[in-house]
Amino acid sequence: MKSEIIAVGSEMLTPFRQDTNSLYVTEKLNLLGVTVAFKTIVGDRQRDLVSVIRTALGRTDIVVIMGGLGPTEDDLTREAVAESLSIQLRRDNDQVVVLAARAATWRIPMPENNLKQADVLDAATVLPNPNGSAPGQWLDVTFEGYRKLLMLLPGPPNECRPLFDAECAPRLRSLLPARAIAKRTLRAAMIPESQADKLLAPIYTQYKDVETTILAHAGDIQLTLLCSKPRLEAAQKRVDELAGRMEEALEDWLYSSGGESADSLEQIVLYHLGLRQATLAVAESCTGGMIAQRITSVAGSSRSFLGGAVAYSNELKTAFAGVPPELIARQGAVSADVAEALAYGIRRYTGATLGLGVTGIAGPSGGSDGKPVGLVYIALSDAQKTESIERTFRGDRDRVRQWATQQALDLVRRRLR
Amino acid sequence: MKSEIIAVGSEMLTPFRQDTNSLYVTEKLNLLGVTVAFKTIVGDRQRDLVSVIRTALGRTDIVVIMGGLGPTEDDLTREAVAESLSIQLRRDNDQVVVLAARAATWRIPMPENNLKQADVLDAATVLPNPNGSAPGQWLDVTFEGYRKLLMLLPGPPNECRPLFDAECAPRLRSLLPARAIAKRTLRAAMIPESQADKLLAPIYTQYKDVETTILAHAGDIQLTLLCSKPRLEAAQKRVDELAGRMEEALEDWLYSSGGESADSLEQIVLYHLGLRQATLAVAESCTGGMIAQRITSVAGSSRSFLGGAVAYSNELKTAFAGVPPELIARQGAVSADVAEALAYGIRRYTGATLGLGVTGIAGPSGGSDGKPVGLVYIALSDAQKTESIERTFRGDRDRVRQWATQQALDLVRRRLR
Repeated sequence: MKSEIIAVGSEMLTPFRQDTNSLYVTEKLNLLGVTVAFKTIVGDRQRDLVSVIRTALGRTDIVVIMGGLGPTEDDLTREAVAESLSIQLRRDNDQVVVLAARAATWRIPMPENNLKQADVLDAATVLPNPNGSAPGQWLDVTFEGYRKLLMLLPGPPNECRPLFDAECAPRLRSLLPARAIAKRTLRAAMIPESQADKLLAPIYTQYKDVETTILAHAGDIQLTLLCSKPRLEAAQKRVDELAGRMEEALEDWLYSSGGESADSLEQIVLYHLGLRQATLAVAESCTGGMIAQRITSVAGSSRSFLGGAVAYSNELKTAFAGVPPELIARQGAVSADVAEALAYGIRRYTGATLGLGVTGIAGPSGGSDGKPVGLVYIALSDAQKTESIERTFRGDRDRVRQWATQQALDLVRRRLR
Repeated sequence: MKSEIIAVGSEMLTPFRQDTNSLYVTEKLNLLGVTVAFKTIVGDRQRDLVSVIRTALGRTDIVVIMGGLGPTEDDLTREAVAESLSIQLRRDNDQVVVLAARAATWRIPMPENNLKQADVLDAATVLPNPNGSAPGQWLDVTFEGYRKLLMLLPGPPNECRPLFDAECAPRLRSLLPARAIAKRTLRAAMIPESQADKLLAPIYTQYKDVETTILAHAGDIQLTLLCSKPRLEAAQKRVDELAGRMEEALEDWLYSSGGESADSLEQIVLYHLGLRQATLAVAESCTGGMIAQRITSVAGSSRSFLGGAVAYSNELKTAFAGVPPELIARQGAVSADVAEALAYGIRRYTGATLGLGVTGIAGPSGGSDGKPVGLVYIALSDAQKTESIERTFRGDRDRVRQWATQQALDLVRRRLR
């Protein structure tokens, strides 16, 4: 079954804003065995809307339209669908009551144009929207001789997504051939994308019935495996078999291989710290708080993460982590010795089981022939030893910092495994 | 002039990836006076591509197609355009030479299928692509009796964007009626979006010839004003007049009101610090490094930002910022007194001109009746005084942290003004 998603709203045709509902709805459609063949973004002009809706009905079986159901003059989805299908709009009394009750709850008078939101297409099933004033609409119609399913959903994500899940997905499921979907996500750190593809392509291309997606971002590779079969056991077997072969190929680059979703690298690091009842503290220079920020983005991280220092100036490297000023003077702030002193110092200073130290040149300036932009030293210290690695990352300031953060977290993961 | 942007690639029809080139190209088209009326995303299937290209040519004057120009079997944009326009593809000898030279430079043998990238449409102008192997193509053709401009660009952003700027924009400029575009960006912090709109809508709705876009994100409001006129002076006058009235209405919520682009809040804070030769240090609890990370994302921030402490545990609040343990025991770690002690302590400890302290409950757990999730105390300390504010932010962990970070930076900005 082929589908098209249409996002309605002139703001999504500016340089500033993008439709994001379609990613959510795509995932849910895929899980029902429905392919998204087209996505179209169109502004608030009825003529354009009609053109887009007719085109979509002409080339796909299922059309999801999001947006343009509000109360303003610009909200024209209802009218455009009526014109596209040559059917009438009627004012739905039940919806008028819903709108009036809503206005009463909020103790605001109901403006006349609000009533527009009670207009529904003849033959439409009204889909109640508990999170907003415009209901969704479901149409099962014939267009140019073919049966088409058409859904109208409100644009705000907190209305669109629950409404799709509560009202559209069950209806689609009951109409479509039963499909069971098995999904697995694997994640790997610091393996170059080209190398991952070289390792994995010979494997996943053998599994034509499993859809493999590879996403790479600053040293993080996420693999999503999706298989749809009439029976779940069969789908799960294929996905698990492929996942098993990929895990083997990825060796210790692999850090997470959960079920439907996989933990992030910071979650894995916290998990291993928790298992060993160990604690971590960090002393960051070039990453400037990015490592701490990623770790503390995980709820409950305070159990294993004590905190750390953003030791941006040389004086703070000394004050917070006891890095000897002579060492900085002799080796330079960006050096293996200073990274190790940061890691050792922050561990001793905070009493953490593990200390992590990072120093580098994020750029764009500050580089030299011997120490180019992108050069980063990362050190890890525990009661037994303090060791550092040297890396040179390419890209702009933000990218260098992101890669360094990822590399630092991966170093902790590898020590804890 | 109406245009359509077509992004080609099955990966953009998955739940994982979005087209982003179109935002860039939209901005550049707008600056040429060209409206983007439709955006379409289509997969790597020739039949679907042809349907999309014909539809676009039927409803707009300018069509930009991005992607599908690579060497693999899945790259079908050339073939689909040929079919849509009923014109032939020919192998361009100059491009074959370019491809061979490229392969030689990289010291790799050239696979046969690479030659596909030398196929160009009859009547196309070949647009040299210095950043990749597939050239762009420019077509000035007649479709169903109307003149159409059609551009084929490679998908990778580092190829697509420079190619549009270098080859497409100048050609479009020479063909389109001369338009001058004036642009201004204003930014404001911590004003609720609804309040901003209530203040500003009565003003900007009076300027029908200026396109105003409001973007809001976690306490940051960005206003973009765009005006297109035959003469620049006239456009600039309108934009400046509207910007002036908005600046007045926004009062001291406004923090940045540059020309074409406006500085971020962290840039403004660093600018004011630099002006006064002042320095800043931060002691973060619930924001966990997010404030330091934002400040250090700015190149050159080391001149004014000394660093700080991520004092996640109570012990580190004492160790890094001298917060008395009795104070934490008496008032709780999330309290105005502890925020002030963090700000005062980090300033004294680092010798910075200004010390910033933040403590709060980011959630999802850790809240209580008296101290709910989202409660944050932010304190600022200088040689004269130490003061704190209390805020309760709504939303999930990430949102609370983002709002708290924005509020903290805004507090510094207001103190420095």
